[in-house]
This record gives sequence, C-alpha cells and structure tokens, in this order.
Amino acid sequence: MHRTVYDEDHESFRQTLRAFIDAEVVPHYDEWFQAGIVPRELYTKLAELGIFGIEVPEEYGGAGIESHKFTAIQYEETARAGVTFGGSGVHVLLALPYIKMLATEEQKQRYLPNFVSAEEMWALAMTEPGAGSDLAGMRTTAKRDGDHYVLNGAKTFITGGVLADRVIVCARTSPPRDDDRRFGISLFAVDAHSDGYTVGRKLDKLGLRTSDTAELSFEDVRVPVEDLLGEENQGFSYLGRNLPSERWGIAHGAYAQAEAAVRFAKDYVQQRTIFGKTVASFQNTKFELAACKAEVDAAQAVADRALEALDAGELTPAEAASAKVFCTEVAHRVIDRCLQLHGGYGFINEYPIARLYADNRVNRIYGGTTEVMKTIIAKDMGL
Amino acid sequence: MHRTVYDEDHESFRQTLRAFIDAEVVPHYDEWFQAGIVPRELYTKLAELGIFGIEVPEEYGGAGIESHKFTAIQYEETARAGVTFGGSGVHVLLALPYIKMLATEEQKQRYLPNFVSAEEMWALAMTEPGAGSDLAGMRTTAKRDGDHYVLNGAKTFITGGVLADRVIVCARTSPPRDDDRRFGISLFAVDAHSDGYTVGRKLDKLGLRTSDTAELSFEDVRVPVEDLLGEENQGFSYLGRNLPSERWGIAHGAYAQAEAAVRFAKDYVQQRTIFGKTVASFQNTKFELAACKAEVDAAQAVADRALEALDAGELTPAEAASAKVFCTEVAHRVIDRCLQLHGGYGFINEYPIARLYADNRVNRIYGGTTEVMKTIIAKDMGL
Amino acid sequence: MHRTVYDEDHESFRQTLRAFIDAEVVPHYDEWFQAGIVPRELYTKLAELGIFGIEVPEEYGGAGIESHKFTAIQYEETARAGVTFGGSGVHVLLALPYIKMLATEEQKQRYLPNFVSAEEMWALAMTEPGAGSDLAGMRTTAKRDGDHYVLNGAKTFITGGVLADRVIVCARTSPPRDDDRRFGISLFAVDAHSDGYTVGRKLDKLGLRTSDTAELSFEDVRVPVEDLLGEENQGFSYLGRNLPSERWGIAHGAYAQAEAAVRFAKDYVQQRTIFGKTVASFQNTKFELAACKAEVDAAQAVADRALEALDAGELTPAEAASAKVFCTEVAHRVIDRCLQLHGGYGFINEYPIARLYADNRVNRIYGGTTEVMKTIIAKDMGL
Amino acid sequence: MHRTVYDEDHESFRQTLRAFIDAEVVPHYDEWFQAGIVPRELYTKLAELGIFGIEVPEEYGGAGIESHKFTAIQYEETARAGVTFGGSGVHVLLALPYIKMLATEEQKQRYLPNFVSAEEMWALAMTEPGAGSDLAGMRTTAKRDGDHYVLNGAKTFITGGVLADRVIVCARTSPPRDDDRRFGISLFAVDAHSDGYTVGRKLDKLGLRTSDTAELSFEDVRVPVEDLLGEENQGFSYLGRNLPSERWGIAHGAYAQAEAAVRFAKDYVQQRTIFGKTVASFQNTKFELAACKAEVDAAQAVADRALEALDAGELTPAEAASAKVFCTEVAHRVIDRCLQLHGGYGFINEYPIARLYADNRVNRIYGGTTEVMKTIIAKDMGL
Repeated sequence: MHRTVYDEDHESFRQTLRAFIDAEVVPHYDEWFQAGIVPRELYTKLAELGIFGIEVPEEYGGAGIESHKFTAIQYEETARAGVTFGGSGVHVLLALPYIKMLATEEQKQRYLPNFVSAEEMWALAMTEPGAGSDLAGMRTTAKRDGDHYVLNGAKTFITGGVLADRVIVCARTSPPRDDDRRFGISLFAVDAHSDGYTVGRKLDKLGLRTSDTAELSFEDVRVPVEDLLGEENQGFSYLGRNLPSERWGIAHGAYAQAEAAVRFAKDYVQQRTIFGKTVASFQNTKFELAACKAEVDAAQAVADRALEALDAGELTPAEAASAKVFCTEVAHRVIDRCLQLHGGYGFINEYPIARLYADNRVNRIYGGTTEVMKTIIAKDMGL
Repeated sequence: MHRTVYDEDHESFRQTLRAFIDAEVVPHYDEWFQAGIVPRELYTKLAELGIFGIEVPEEYGGAGIESHKFTAIQYEETARAGVTFGGSGVHVLLALPYIKMLATEEQKQRYLPNFVSAEEMWALAMTEPGAGSDLAGMRTTAKRDGDHYVLNGAKTFITGGVLADRVIVCARTSPPRDDDRRFGISLFAVDAHSDGYTVGRKLDKLGLRTSDTAELSFEDVRVPVEDLLGEENQGFSYLGRNLPSERWGIAHGAYAQAEAAVRFAKDYVQQRTIFGKTVASFQNTKFELAACKAEVDAAQAVADRALEALDAGELTPAEAASAKVFCTEVAHRVIDRCLQLHGGYGFINEYPIARLYADNRVNRIYGGTTEVMKTIIAKDMGL
Repeated sequence: MHRTVYDEDHESFRQTLRAFIDAEVVPHYDEWFQAGIVPRELYTKLAELGIFGIEVPEEYGGAGIESHKFTAIQYEETARAGVTFGGSGVHVLLALPYIKMLATEEQKQRYLPNFVSAEEMWALAMTEPGAGSDLAGMRTTAKRDGDHYVLNGAKTFITGGVLADRVIVCARTSPPRDDDRRFGISLFAVDAHSDGYTVGRKLDKLGLRTSDTAELSFEDVRVPVEDLLGEENQGFSYLGRNLPSERWGIAHGAYAQAEAAVRFAKDYVQQRTIFGKTVASFQNTKFELAACKAEVDAAQAVADRALEALDAGELTPAEAASAKVFCTEVAHRVIDRCLQLHGGYGFINEYPIARLYADNRVNRIYGGTTEVMKTIIAKDMGL
Repeated sequence: MHRTVYDEDHESFRQTLRAFIDAEVVPHYDEWFQAGIVPRELYTKLAELGIFGIEVPEEYGGAGIESHKFTAIQYEETARAGVTFGGSGVHVLLALPYIKMLATEEQKQRYLPNFVSAEEMWALAMTEPGAGSDLAGMRTTAKRDGDHYVLNGAKTFITGGVLADRVIVCARTSPPRDDDRRFGISLFAVDAHSDGYTVGRKLDKLGLRTSDTAELSFEDVRVPVEDLLGEENQGFSYLGRNLPSERWGIAHGAYAQAEAAVRFAKDYVQQRTIFGKTVASFQNTKFELAACKAEVDAAQAVADRALEALDAGELTPAEAASAKVFCTEVAHRVIDRCLQLHGGYGFINEYPIARLYADNRVNRIYGGTTEVMKTIIAKDMGL
C-alpha cells in the first residue's frame, strides 16, 4: 500500500543512511557479531551523520525535529541490511526524552552537545536483579552527602551498558511514604567513569549479540547534585511517561524486521534450487511468503498509524501497547516462517534470518512483556 | 486509535442508520433468522433511507458520492447490532459497479432509478455448479435470436438470488478463439421475472442464514438485446475489474464483525457471574479480550488504509487480496475466542456471537478464497 | 500407526455398525437434519442392534462389557459417515454410569431392561439457566411430601431432552450446611411423562442440529421416593465422578470428527477439478492434508491412550482434561482447514464438512470448557 | 498418563544417567557452552557408562539390545538437565545403523569395539554446500586407484564433524546410468586423521552451540578399499533406510525438550515474585502451563507410540514423518510459551530455556524439513 508517512526529506535520509550502512557497517558486521559488541567508533560515525541530533533542539546542536519518522527509517534500514547499531538505540529512544523532559537549562547545555556528538553515549538503568519491572522493590539507594549523592546498588539488563558514558540511574533517595508508596525515587545522570561505578559482565543473550547488555554495580559512587534529573523523590512520576514512544519503537522495529525477513527469504528461495527447480517455484513457498506479506502489510499499517499518532502527541498507552503486541507477534510468526524457507541455512548465523530469529525473541518481552501490554489494553477497555 | 477515515457526514449517517437498525431490524431479526430470509419490504425501507443511491450519480436519482465510506459504515453498524440486511449487499457492492462501468446512457436511465428505489434488486450470477471460479469452463449459453438472446444453463451460489429482480448473468455467446481463450463470454442484465427463469432451491448454508443464496436455472429465457451489458463476447475482460472493491468490502465487513464480537463478549463477561465473580474479573478473560482487541485494532488499520486507497482509485489487486486475507483471518480468530468466552451460550443462535461464528466462515472463501488471494499476492511479489 | 486398542470383536462390531448406518441413517439424514431431530424409532433400531446394552450387566439384559471401546467405535463410525445418532449419546455415556453407580438392585431391575431396549431413553439435567457449571447456585428444589418429592425449577442445555423418557435431575433437597456447602443436593430419575414436567423449546443451536437440546421446566412434578438416586442430600458427591469418561468421550469423538474431516476433504479434492487439474494435485492441498493428518495421528494416539487408561480404571481427571483440551483443539484446527479445501461447498450444509464445522464448535465448551480443563490440569501440576 | 514404554531396567538406567549428568555434565556445561564444544573426554566417560554399546551386538563389546528405549531416556535426561552431549547423538543414532546394516564381519570387528569405547567417534557426511537434501547433485567423488579410493570434494552441516574420528562419507564412484539415476554413489568409512582430510570451520549456529557442526573438505584423501561400506555404486539404496529411526529420534528429543521446558518454566514461576505474588499465582501463568502440558502429553503419546512401533520394526516412513512434524511443532510452541513466562531471563543464555529455544529451532529442519515430511505423508495418503 502506498505509504503516506514519509516525505522527500525522509526518503533522502533513507538513501544516505543506506549508503552509510553499506559502506561502514555491512563489511564489518560479522566481526562485530563475533565480538559481541560494536566498536565505539561506530557511534562517532553515526554522530557525524547527524543521527543522534535529529530530535535535539537546535540550540544544543541538534536538528530540532519533533518527529520519530527518522528513527523509524533507521529501524527499517538496519533491519533491511540485517544489522544493528549495537546498543545505541537507547541513546535516542530511551534516554533523550528524559533529558528533554527533566533537564534544567544548565543540564541541557552541559549534556546535549556531547549527546549529539556521541562524546557521551547514554543508557538507562532501571531494572534490578530479581525485581523485573516492579519498581516498588528497588534496592539501589542514593544518600545525600553534602553536594553529592552516594550511590549504592546494582542494575541489570542495561542495554548499551558496556559502552555508555552516562547512565540515567533510578535510585531510592527516601523511604516510601505511607500515603504515597511512589515517593522516594530519584533519577540521576551518572557519569559512567566515576569511581565505584563498575560494569559487570556483559550478559550472554539468546540474541541481540552486538547489543552490549550489562550488569552495573555502584559502590559508593559519588554523584554531584548537579546530575539529579528532575525533582528529588519524584522520580516515579517521571517513569513511564515515555513508554508509548518506547513501545512504538519496538513495534516499528519488529515490523521492519518482519519486512526484512520476507525480503531475505524471497532472495534465498529465488536463488536456491532443489530437484532442479528454484525453491521459489513451489506453491508452498509462494503461499508461505504471501501469507507473510499479508501480515507484514498489516504490521506496517499498524506501525505507521501509531507513528503518526505519536508524532501528533496522541498515541495513548493502550494504543501503544496494542501496536507492540500486534507487531511483535507478527514479527515472531513471519520470521519463523521465513527462516523455515531457508532450510538448514536458516540455522547458520551468517544468514541474517538466523540472527533475526534470535534477536526478535526479546521484542515480546522488553519494554513491557506482552502480558503487561494485555493488562494495559484490558484496563483501557474497562475490564 | 483515533480514526481519520470518517468526517461528520459519515458519523451523522451512522447515527441515522443505527436508529433505523434498532427500530426496523433488531426487533424482527430472530423471526427473519428462523425464516432464513429477510422480507422484501426491508429493501424498500433501506431505499427510503437512501442507502442504495449513495454511489449512484445524481442524474439517476442517487447522491453521486464516489466513496465506499458509507458502505463501510453499513458493515460496521449491521455487525455492531448482530444483524445483516440479508443478501442486499451485492446490490450495491457487486452489481452497481457493473452498471456504472458498462451500461449505456439508455440503460442507466432504465436501470438506475429502480435500482435506487429498490423496485429492482440486483444480483450477480457467475458461478456454475461444479465450476467454482474457473470461468473457462462456463456452460451457460446465450444464443442470438432476432432481437433477443436465448439463455440456457444454470448458476449457483447466487447471493440475493431469491429476492433479486434483475441478475447480471455471465454466459457464453461464442466459442473461445484459438488465439484468445477469453473471447466469447457476454454479460446480460436478466429480468428475473422472465419466462423460463427459475429460482431453484435456496441453499442451506452453514451461516448467513438470512442471505438468500440460490441456484438459478435458465430454460430458453428470452433476454432482449437491450439488456446486453457491454460489448458482446468481451465479457471476460469486464470480470474482475471490480474485485478489489469487492475484496475490500469483505475485509472491512470482517473487521467490523471482529470488532462487534469483542463488544458482544465484553458485554457478556461483564454481566455473567461464575463462582460469585463476573467472568470479566478473571485474568484469562481480560487477556483474551485484550489479545482480540489488538488484532481488531490491526484489522481496522488495514481496512481503513485499504478504504482510503480504494476511494483514491489506488487499491491494487494485491493490496486488496492482502487486506482480505488479513482481516478475514483476524475475524476468524477473534470471533472464535469471543465465542469461547460465552461458554455454552456461544453455541445458541439467539446470541449474535453464535451467528457471527457461522456467518464469518465464508469470508475466507467467497470473493476468492484465501488460496486465490495468496496466489495474487505471490505473483505481485514477483514469485 | 497400527492401533492396538481394538481386537477382532471390535472390528466385527464396526462392520455391523457401518452397515447399519449406511442402510438406516445415511439415506434419511438430510431429512432429519432439516427437521432438527432424529426419529424416535432410530433409538429402537439402535437398541435392537444391541448398542445400548453393551456396558449394562448381563443380569439386566446387557452384554456386560466393562469397556468403552464399543462406544469409541460408534464415535468413529458416525463421524466417518458424517451423521450423528441425535442426542442419544448421553443415554450410555452420561446416564448409565449414574445408574450403575447409584441405583439400588430394585431400581436396576426397574430401569435397566427399558434402558437397554430404548423403551426409556435417559438424559441428564444439571445446568440451570444463567448458572452454567456452578452447581452452588442451583435453584431447582425437591421437597419431600409423603412418599413423593415435589420438584420445581428449570433446566437448560439438556441434550436429548426432547425425546428423553427419564431424566436424571439434580435438585436441592436441603439448604447447604455452614460446614458443608455441598450438602443438600439430591439426584432423581424423573419420569418425563409426569404431570408438570414440560419440555420447553428446543434450543436453536449453531450446530448439532439433530441433537435435541432442550429446556425443561418442572412445576410441582411429583417424583416417587423410589426414584431418588443415591442418598438424599449427598448428590453433589456423585457429580463429577463420571467426568473423566465423559471427557474422554468428547475427546475421542473430536478425534473421530477430525479423522472424518480429512477423509471428506481428501475425497473432495481428488474429484474436484480446477483449471483442468484436480485440487488434490496442488502442493498446498497436499501439505494442508498432510499437516492435518499429523494432527489427527496425534489425536488418535492421545484418545487411544486415554481409552486404555479409562478401561483400566486409571484415567485421572487431569489426564482426561488434557486429552479433551488437546483432541478438541486438533479437531477445531483440522476441520477448519478441511472445510477450506472444499471452497464454497464447505459452506453448504449438504456437505458433511459444513455440519462438522458447526457441530465441532461445542466440543471445546461442553463437558467443561477448555478454561475449566486448564484449571484442572494446572492444579494437578501443583500450580 | 501412566507410561507403559519403560520397565525397571530402563528406570534404573535413567537414575544412573541422571547421576552421571549431575556429576559430570551440569557443573561444566556453562564452560562448554561458551567454548562451543564439549571436551573429547566426555565421550570417553559416556563410553565407560556403556552408552555407546547398548545397541551394539555382544560379540563386538556391546549390550546387544535391539531397542531405542535407552536412547529415548538419554534424550529425556539431557533435556531435563538442560544440557546436551555435544554432537555425539549421531554416533549411535545415525552412524551405527549403517555399520550394522552394511559392514562386513571383518569391518564390524575392526570398527565396533572402538565405536563402543569411543576411541573412534563416528559421524555422517551427506550434505554438500548448496545441495541440501538433493543427493542427485552430489559432487564429491571417489576414484578407484589400486587398493584405495581417492576422495575429493566437500561436505557441510556435519554434526560431530570436529571431534569425529571416522566419518561415513557419501561420494560418487561412477556416473549415473541413463536407466538408473541413482546408480554410482558409494559410502566410505573415512578415517578423519587421513592426509588431505580437513575440518573446515565449525559453523556458527543459531543454537546447538555445543554440537560441533563442521564443514569438511577432502583433497586427494586416500581411502583403503577395506573402508568401502556396502556395495560400490549402490550407496543410494542404503540411504534413507534409517530415516524412520532418525526421525523418531528427533521427535522424541523434541518431546523431551518440550517436557523439560514446562519443568523449567514451572520452577521459575514458582520462585519468582512480582507485585508481591509468585508469577505462578496468576491465572494466565496457570493456563499457559496447562496448555503446554496438554501439548506435551500429546507429544509423549505420539513419541512413545512411534518408539514402540520402531522397536517392533513397524514404524513406516510416513508414521515417522508424522511423529516428527507433530512433536517438533509442539516443542516449538511449548518452548516459546515457556520462555515467555521467564520474562527477561528467558533471553539470557544462562537459563536453559533460552538455549532450548535456540536449539529447538533446527528440529523442524534437520533430518528432513517439515515440508519434506509433509510430502512423505501426502504420498502415503495417496495424494
């Protein structure tokens, strides 16, 4: 279906990005995949391309565009090429909204130029070992000591955690109040090069191998009060405000992966022969790919609709949840079917479909599991 | 998601239609369902409401609106009320495009006012017993005899066939040519009250009980040459031109059914108690309905996108096929799950969900089966 | 897979039954289907065949066989022929176990010979309008008055309720005790020809059209104390003892329906041609049927295993629930796919696949819904 | 369901094996997983346990048991512990049947004692790069040169290929005949330590990381004529004879994985708390696990039935194909759902469910894809 979300600027950006990926990422990707991490220089190059500044206001060195469409195109183009930009997705999609929402003018001037230039890569540290999405059980603490907070605790599942220079850490600054269990949490933009800040092991994950997901631990890390984000003790109220955009991001990324999977499978079956015929010439192959195409078309319609609503400031939490559930399930089904069409090669990591299969599995989990999404949708339905 | 397809005129029409359905259809529907047919007067009332003239040019008594959005609202509102308008859907969705495309000025003046007023209800007779969608095997013949054609043969699966007054019949007027196997088929607007025109038995169907699907047989039916539609022997080229809109119609109808099913189930589980709790209060119920909602949201996005493309004259056959496959499969899954939430009552026809379950099964079959749709999509993908 | 459940006696019975069905059922089935009920004489003929006495002890006129294998064969053969024996399944599968478990010697002598000869057809009346499987909310009462109980109330979803001569009715004889909420329910073998016993409307169901499912109402029905089954007030403890065999029955029947569906579809696709080729010759057709076959093989393995366990007295409630969930879901998926292969004919009730599709939908609901089954399985898993 | 396949000897073996796995495998498994290979000594220890000799005749040092039940228990116990024995599965399941079927008495005496003692680990080399299961396109050649054959070519997807000491290689010894395209293929038991025999790279796979799948290349490898297996040029007729047992093996292994997945998930949800409740206490969790259990029960019934048929020499190719399709699809569905219940931890490789998810994906591909299985089933159905 002729898409209406993108204009000429977007398509021009797409061409630039595609050329960049072909030149700077594809040739090295196998190596990065084996290493389980992308090189830090990739981020510098992405910064030079202007990627990190798109949604940053002009006064801080960005392009000042209030739209997620360029981000959408990044998802589409990385998926198309069968690569990722490592864990850098959180820099813009997760961290930037917090800075824009909470940082003071002074902080913005201090943080954003380095954000745009990739001199400081950001990440987000919410989850604690054993606690999942249950923030009430948070055990990381930040105690005021003069003009510093002293941070102690541990975080896990921190995407981008190995390469991050500054991490938004969620910590308890006061005990909860009887009348307000949410009271007492604060957010800090912690310098990852501080004393006592340790990057634990990089998690060995099923997929997203180049995404440096880490455990972090803090032992008496001294955080200057200037790096408190937003008001002290009010952190809980900030969390979750950005979830619709995060969930749209996962939905759109999943759509893009599914679309790419169909492309990989189509290319494969058209060149691969069996019993003297291309795999593409079998009716089962045609029907499988057609069925996948119909699902991908639907995921595109959903992701695009959510994207327009998001840019218009109208994407509700339930709508974002619905789009995430749907697009991630489509991607799951489609990638599985497309892998199957690859036969044994679908199990070999040098084929992008194998990596996609593994990567994609987390889509139904992170940013809130499908079960959490259903809870949100059901509540919105009045159930 | 805030829908952008409808404006105020549409919503006002929706209110009028909803009131009409509540007053004129719902109170009688059980009776019609038992009878297996709607009363002929329903069509007259629908005509009075202006339903049949919406897409008819003003000079022939219609509203001259070139859009399927009002039709879309009819699907949504009938589904919402758990009713149908019998077999009258083919009047506008299937027959009218042929008239608009093929009828001469004289024919339009003769046909369309009666079309708008429901004095003549139209149907379409393509399929023959044992031949399915394979038009090459057509055995109905029309032989020229003076200023008439003499029609012989039989048709089956004719929706609206019992109550139709005029039926577009597809018949062979010449043998196929060696260099053009499609040559030799012609279309006629046959008066159902002609001698030799017999309505055979009404088919006993799994669902769509109020839709009068019939077998027709023609024994020396004399059709005036004035009722030839389009050029003689060129009928094959006319067929299929309207398939994208027909398939969008099925897709949109399926979406509307799925949406209605969720509503029926939600109403049921909120009032039904078991073990002292409403069924709605169980987590499984919430999750089932939330999962259905996410699928319905997707179907709506797909159907709306196809509707906009259709109105813009841009809906390609493959896009229509994709929308039909997707929306009808969503409806299948959603209606099944919503029926399950009704427990034993879901198996009783007085509950609309039971009727929907049966009705919906044909969506993946008529207007071209899912398998035919996949063939179209695959070809469009270059497979 | 070579099945080991049946021996020569079973196969000989199968041949007899198949001949009976071909001669006495198939020729009339369309008529019965239209009438929505089988003729009472069918039951007499089935009795003459010895069907109802198989599991009845010899001293009461039966064959004294303690095995459900002959019942299994009935499911397989009726499904194979695309017919049913109306609502008579409850006579042996549901009612007989209660008689064998609860009836006194005097009652057995009075009931069983007529049971075997079909002079008295039995049914079971548990469910009340609006109460589903929640027996605690039972409102039907039976008050002792001399040597009678006076029965008042209503029941619904009574399979075989129109033609039944004697119905096991569940009624409240005392209020529940504080320390035993299950106290106070009793069972009665009520003569359906009693004064005040009314067969309400036959329910118009989605499927199982020849199964006479009825509402019953009791207005001061005088039930002799000789027709109390088991001990007064202890009825609750009797209920559910037979559920594993009932659920195996549904599971086995669903397996048999799925097997039959594959056979119907195979026959259809082998004779039906499209574009000059049989439908069977398309790869999609082969793959669909092969996929169905693999599922049917699995359902057979499950049903057979449950049958052996049942005959050995070892089938636990959780195992029966597991078999029911699995086999009914297989049947749902398989019948849907087999119907699809029929194209438009799959929607026409003269094709058995259309009837199967509608009939089968209740399998996941009655005898305990899939949700109830999951609850049972989960508990058994220690969850 | 009480299983009847195993007797006391089997259960005693199970206990021995379980103790071995707990002592010798589990403590080291993370290390092996990181290394992507198991240590060669594991095979020596397994040999000491008697694992490799179970199905080897007593005269060659084995136990002489003609049954796959002990192999079945190995699948169950490794899956239960979340481990594998690397690529050693092919030693017994794939290679041994060829030796037993084709080896001369002299060969058996030479090969089997080392087979039993693991001094020689065997593998099977059929597939060539770019050729998949299409043996007709084989390009590896073996040319007779005195009392040797000179082997040239390459193979891929060779499970156990890194650690194998002797590999059954399939090579072309003569061109195909016009009247017999299958003529000309021969099998050789090639010593992996020969000159010109090279183990190429170990393939980086989506899953089965500890299984050493390799590419092999042969450059003028001199194979003594004593290592020709079976008759020259008749190799094609030997291939495939063992496929039913291989496919049962995959089916049974998949069942065992699914069973293990349910156990992992159950353990996880019972200890993990969220919002102050265990995950196990949510209805959705119970229902998901119950649904999985019903599928696992079915897979067990299918795998056990196939195992009994296999041991009885009655498992047909179509039955094996049916069991493989079914059990591998169950495993796919069940493992996916069980992973989901782990939330984010399901994506971390230290949890066995994450490894299972990746490992299991190949089940629907190797040993013949699901598509090949469907072709076999359809043919057997007469389609």
